[in-house]
Amino acid sequence: MKVFLCGFGTIGQGITEAIMLKKDFFMKRYGKNVKIVGALDSRTYVIDPEGLDPKALLDTKKKTGKVGTETYSKPSEVMDKLDFDVLIESTPTDIKTGGVGLENIMYALNREIDVVTVNKGPLALKYWEIMDLAKEKGCMIGFEGSVGGAMPIIDLCQYDLAGEKIKSIRGIFNGTCNYILTKMDNGQPFEQALREAQQQGYAETDPTSDIEGYDSACKVVILANSVFGRNVTFNDVDITGITSINADAVALARSNGMVIRLIGEVSPTKLEVAPRLIPKGHPLSLPGTLNTAEISTELAGPILISGRGAGRMETASAIISDLVGILDKRFGE
Amino acid sequence: MKVFLCGFGTIGQGITEAIMLKKDFFMKRYGKNVKIVGALDSRTYVIDPEGLDPKALLDTKKKTGKVGTETYSKPSEVMDKLDFDVLIESTPTDIKTGGVGLENIMYALNREIDVVTVNKGPLALKYWEIMDLAKEKGCMIGFEGSVGGAMPIIDLCQYDLAGEKIKSIRGIFNGTCNYILTKMDNGQPFEQALREAQQQGYAETDPTSDIEGYDSACKVVILANSVFGRNVTFNDVDITGITSINADAVALARSNGMVIRLIGEVSPTKLEVAPRLIPKGHPLSLPGTLNTAEISTELAGPILISGRGAGRMETASAIISDLVGILDKRFGE
Repeated sequence: MKVFLCGFGTIGQGITEAIMLKKDFFMKRYGKNVKIVGALDSRTYVIDPEGLDPKALLDTKKKTGKVGTETYSKPSEVMDKLDFDVLIESTPTDIKTGGVGLENIMYALNREIDVVTVNKGPLALKYWEIMDLAKEKGCMIGFEGSVGGAMPIIDLCQYDLAGEKIKSIRGIFNGTCNYILTKMDNGQPFEQALREAQQQGYAETDPTSDIEGYDSACKVVILANSVFGRNVTFNDVDITGITSINADAVALARSNGMVIRLIGEVSPTKLEVAPRLIPKGHPLSLPGTLNTAEISTELAGPILISGRGAGRMETASAIISDLVGILDKRFGE
Repeated sequence: MKVFLCGFGTIGQGITEAIMLKKDFFMKRYGKNVKIVGALDSRTYVIDPEGLDPKALLDTKKKTGKVGTETYSKPSEVMDKLDFDVLIESTPTDIKTGGVGLENIMYALNREIDVVTVNKGPLALKYWEIMDLAKEKGCMIGFEGSVGGAMPIIDLCQYDLAGEKIKSIRGIFNGTCNYILTKMDNGQPFEQALREAQQQGYAETDPTSDIEGYDSACKVVILANSVFGRNVTFNDVDITGITSINADAVALARSNGMVIRLIGEVSPTKLEVAPRLIPKGHPLSLPGTLNTAEISTELAGPILISGRGAGRMETASAIISDLVGILDKRFGE
């Protein structure tokens, strides 16, 4: 069972570590190992058809800042050199064009290789193009980690609730915004809360994608397509971020027993990200960095799922979940 | 696709209604209908190898209080008369012996018939006996509805988190107790909160199983066996109910920013149901009748799932989910 890692940042390193940790699990479940036969970061690559040593990969990246010594001009040139079963795509999200992630996914599918992606860009822009190609080529494509990190909402909606009619999903899809808004609940001004989020490592140096709601919008689009069968892209989402929320608004909410949360909402007719008033005590009012989604169903009523929305090993967990889904089908009993 | 319903109380009627509602869904997914070929309640039965009219079943039960006109002495005598693919078992829980539910499940498995059960008794007493027989006979057995009604925790742990190491599960597994404790948060005495729960239809006339923690204990045992691979029964659980919680305890908790909740806890070494102090703002502190479980995982950290723990259509949703799992395997693409 051979995998190729496109992207060797935080997530790529996390999945490498997880594959090491899960060695016994894979051996027990499939009677064989998962081998990493290739890995590339933004400039360099390393390959070995017999399988690379995961620990050496991590050490090299740590020491040199690069995963390999060879450079490449296009990832496909590197992948062309190898046979493998699954592409794990974790290059940075490009929400304008889909970027190299989109190219990598289409390349793999065209070669009839299964894909696990945590890269939101390709799915938020070209969901059906990707799915149609996967279907045509008989490929599986996992993207649990692209929505809410370790919160297993895709599996939940697609498998566990397969017999249910899902009416709508409302949720907190960005832990950074929720952290900032939680701090504002307690009287901190926006700027200070943002700085604290950056100091804690929750927010990027450039926090635009989080605080303007773009990151949440990507996730809402992926749910609209995958759960509701809609045909929409990032550009169809009504997006309002949290930058204009001030202390007065938060105080007014509080005096009415409410808090302000950045809520993504998707249904057969809705596609929106905006700050909303949520009653205290409601599951979507919870403080902190968790992602939480409220799934409204026809028979079961509301079902709530929460999990860490980001993080190295948390996202690796979602990738492992997808990988197990694929390997069960391809190599299972 | 023929099903037989053992039990035609609230749940049996709910699943009958759900099968009607999902007619188009089943036809689209499998190209055929799900037919109810037999149904029995505590005294009467009705069968038709060609399929019964679900609406007529519901009308008869409503008008006469019975599902059929014929009586039986043992359910197996009735089931002997028919061929069917899935037994749906929803007779009342008997936590002393497993009761007729256990007999029905073993009967079906011995005939190589798949089973969906929401009856907790058989699973809380003879989990491995049931699973070993199912394995021997090549049968599938779904029991999502037996733990937390519409909260899909079994699927979540067994499939979505298949690659994860689950370290422990802590949760609220009884909505009635949580309703009572929420009322007590606000200063109501236990007896009054209990009466209100009974008036609202959340608590039974005899609330023993809920307030003494027996119901939660059944669910904890099922999780211990199914998720942690332990070999335990109801009698192995340390159980403390909520009857001794008084206003002083609640006030003391409140003054420390905490609430009291009845928590079931299971791990490779723990098996316990007891009132616990939970910080306000923690997901397990939420008010109301939802069931909530916090699943601690190795890589993903905490994952939380909530849903309605009981209710006619809510439990029917869990049964449909199991039924779809079985039918996908037996009749799917």
